[in-house]
Amino acid sequence: MTRRRKHWGWGFEDQQPPPGEVEATATAAREHLGFEPAPVERPVPLDDVTLPAPALDPPASLADICRTDPYERVTHSYGKSYRDVVRAFRGRFDNPPDVVAHPRDEAELERVLAWCEEAGAAAVPFGGGTSVVGGVEPPLGRAAVSIDLKRMDRVLEVDSESRAALIQAGAMGPLLEDQLRGHGLTLRHFPQSFEYSTLGGWIATRAGGHYATLHTHIDDFVESVRALTPRGVWESRRLPGSGAGPSPDRLLIGSEGILGVITQAWMRVQNAPRFRESAGLTFDSFEAGARAVRALSQSGLHPSNCRLLDGAEAALTGAAPDGRALLVLGFESADHALDPWMARALELCADHGGRARGGDDRSTRGEAESSWRDAFLQAPYLRDTLVAAGVFVETFESAVTWDRFDALVASVRERAREALGAGATVTCRLTHVYPDGAAPYFTVLAPARRGDELAQWDEVKAAASEAILGGGGTITHHHAVGRDHRPWYDRQRPDPFADALRAAKAAVDPAGILNPGVLV
Amino acid sequence: MTRRRKHWGWGFEDQQPPPGEVEATATAAREHLGFEPAPVERPVPLDDVTLPAPALDPPASLADICRTDPYERVTHSYGKSYRDVVRAFRGRFDNPPDVVAHPRDEAELERVLAWCEEAGAAAVPFGGGTSVVGGVEPPLGRAAVSIDLKRMDRVLEVDSESRAALIQAGAMGPLLEDQLRGHGLTLRHFPQSFEYSTLGGWIATRAGGHYATLHTHIDDFVESVRALTPRGVWESRRLPGSGAGPSPDRLLIGSEGILGVITQAWMRVQNAPRFRESAGLTFDSFEAGARAVRALSQSGLHPSNCRLLDGAEAALTGAAPDGRALLVLGFESADHALDPWMARALELCADHGGRARGGDDRSTRGEAESSWRDAFLQAPYLRDTLVAAGVFVETFESAVTWDRFDALVASVRERAREALGAGATVTCRLTHVYPDGAAPYFTVLAPARRGDELAQWDEVKAAASEAILGGGGTITHHHAVGRDHRPWYDRQRPDPFADALRAAKAAVDPAGILNPGVLV
Repeated sequence: MTRRRKHWGWGFEDQQPPPGEVEATATAAREHLGFEPAPVERPVPLDDVTLPAPALDPPASLADICRTDPYERVTHSYGKSYRDVVRAFRGRFDNPPDVVAHPRDEAELERVLAWCEEAGAAAVPFGGGTSVVGGVEPPLGRAAVSIDLKRMDRVLEVDSESRAALIQAGAMGPLLEDQLRGHGLTLRHFPQSFEYSTLGGWIATRAGGHYATLHTHIDDFVESVRALTPRGVWESRRLPGSGAGPSPDRLLIGSEGILGVITQAWMRVQNAPRFRESAGLTFDSFEAGARAVRALSQSGLHPSNCRLLDGAEAALTGAAPDGRALLVLGFESADHALDPWMARALELCADHGGRARGGDDRSTRGEAESSWRDAFLQAPYLRDTLVAAGVFVETFESAVTWDRFDALVASVRERAREALGAGATVTCRLTHVYPDGAAPYFTVLAPARRGDELAQWDEVKAAASEAILGGGGTITHHHAVGRDHRPWYDRQRPDPFADALRAAKAAVDPAGILNPGVLV
Repeated sequence: MTRRRKHWGWGFEDQQPPPGEVEATATAAREHLGFEPAPVERPVPLDDVTLPAPALDPPASLADICRTDPYERVTHSYGKSYRDVVRAFRGRFDNPPDVVAHPRDEAELERVLAWCEEAGAAAVPFGGGTSVVGGVEPPLGRAAVSIDLKRMDRVLEVDSESRAALIQAGAMGPLLEDQLRGHGLTLRHFPQSFEYSTLGGWIATRAGGHYATLHTHIDDFVESVRALTPRGVWESRRLPGSGAGPSPDRLLIGSEGILGVITQAWMRVQNAPRFRESAGLTFDSFEAGARAVRALSQSGLHPSNCRLLDGAEAALTGAAPDGRALLVLGFESADHALDPWMARALELCADHGGRARGGDDRSTRGEAESSWRDAFLQAPYLRDTLVAAGVFVETFESAVTWDRFDALVASVRERAREALGAGATVTCRLTHVYPDGAAPYFTVLAPARRGDELAQWDEVKAAASEAILGGGGTITHHHAVGRDHRPWYDRQRPDPFADALRAAKAAVDPAGILNPGVLV
């Protein structure tokens, strides 16, 4: 219980490397990226942070689950986007929540919501706080209560016959998997934020997960959801499938806290895989690799992993230093050996010029996958050091149909490079693929304009987002909308749907307390 | 153009067998079912039907697409449920639409909707008119326009790269497939109503289709939808996947005409399958077969066909006369041979006592599948004769998690038999299966209480629906809600969702003209 999360970046306080090590890594990173040397900054300590006084006083009846101390307010001020980390690193917490509530059960949560409605305060649901789109940031100019769900973190029930589990919304990835493991089950939802994000957050934001095909979003694993709205409990029936009107679950999934606070969900879980096949294949170009991926995604083979990295991304993560595009391909099953699946997949790759790394030596096949996965999970930790190093680092992601894929990728690369200027690195990978398209994910790295990073971010974010929208993509495939994507989301969604969503929200949250400013 | 649909039953007028043949089939059917002989009735001819005068007069500007003649009004009065066929057979058309509009494009549809709003008339979208839940029946006590979409029946665009097609809502199954065939593509959505139902109807009702696993509903094939609402065009972006807020498509899918009139959709289509494996397996009991099906559905093998018939159903359809439960299992692929898939599936079946019919002789494997499919498509034609024969015939369907599966099936059987009395036959099959449950589909056959069939229907419908709801199932897996399922649907859905849906409807249809009485 003494272990605390860092107040400004990723992970726990005890995971922050000592200043000397940060300095060395920062210097090496700039050199590796071809940037001029620059001084390495240090984060503003929590003790030096000044916060506005809380505008709200929790009632005595909620005093034991409400906190107003600086650490709590600071760590619930932001998500974990680059903008968030930069602001937190510099000690800028201009608009923290007034109160942080930690309900232990639905009864307490209900009382917190009732108090918010009475006090006219915004209620901002907070899971792991790993939003990268401003989804958990309090609205400006309004008293706000951040409602942290992490005390509701239990797997309440397991139905092994139906392979489903009832899980509380505040359970973070590792804790949730630990509880399922005893039953031989696993949710197998592994977003990059896995260590620190929660089931409720995944559902509220339509998080993308482990499976590159078929079950790409958490949506596909939701059997039923339960949420508290200011006007009662919204709970669907546990059903394997239904055709009874528009799906109630699909309106809650992705609602980003504006319709209700998700408290628990029955999730479809998996038996732990016993059979695995994996391979690393290289291609002359990203475009050639994408054609192989398209063939794979339309083959009905359903690889669990099918992540294509462009040459720069493969080099950057150390997965393939030779500058060729790399496809990390994997199959897994709890039921059957997968040789025929992989054999056919390798044929399809070969048809499109894919060459197996390490030939047919199966023992080396898993290497690309595991080295890429390690880099993937380490990235948010490394980002903290990049901020100290004055390296601007951001990601953009979308999904687009195959007919528009090449053009969209080229356009985002070009517009992002234009916005960031010479010396910027823009890499691309595919995180998830579909028969009708793919989800490209861009990473941009550039020398930061120190002290002016937020303006720099505004510029490149607008440039990339315009390219995405203009190219026929979605403003987000799995990062959610939050506050940051609003301008483009508003243009993307059908107007009558926006009206319908506003009306739906007003029906269940007439006082408009739930996460105001997000989505509508 | 001279070929007309029957005004009271399934198929075309020229498909109605002559009276002597109906008489013979009807007599044989009653005998086969063990019912006492009974006189065979004849349908009331259209000329003998009396209709109330139309309460509405279409404006001159819409005169060329509006019809008020008896044939049009009669054939748009009902769907094709047993209740509908009985009423139509007896010449009872108490509440026909006043006008039937046949818009040829969106501009005409928009004008029809504007006129309905102005005239305060209900606008009832009508695709193929095959609803079995009262989904296309005009509301009582209100002028109504039935809007028939069948003139909008074109495949407008094909994107072979993304394997997607833009299809107008009024395209019926065979016409739609004909148009796709030239591109080597197929939607492969084959509900029992395939010959006469439309894409727009499938989407509006979340129709269940060809695939027994994985892509069970039309929902899974929708890439984007376009609908006209009284407050503008609701059109989503073509996207292979997205995480931008709650899915706009998922609110339209299943909306049964209350939010807008679906005019076209980009659909994910398939390459035509080149490889097929199929097998018929028998089990000692339906419950043993269900355990095999559960293992298959959780295996990740994703059979395209996995239909389990109980002994009575297998005998009734001629698929397996020996009284054992029959599993019709199939795999299909456009990409790869399926021997390893089928081999593993047969192992799983054997683990649960499944015995291959015809041993390992592959040439006979497809027989069960094709004889079952023929019976499946012929059933609605046969039903017309059963009505003439005084045989009560109805189906109930649901979906339920595996932990509650056996109990729900037993309870529906028992309650339906109780309601129908001695001599009733209740059969069950699984139409679609999931890792977490299955969709049981019940057929009931009993001597009809002649002249009192609607009351008989009310009793058995209530009994079966209570058993379904009480057993933890959904009131409909793929027949939609319409008017018939409202009492149970209202209890099934979360109350705040009902409020949200009502508010959403009011936002896009403030005058409440769209399919009033359905869903909300």
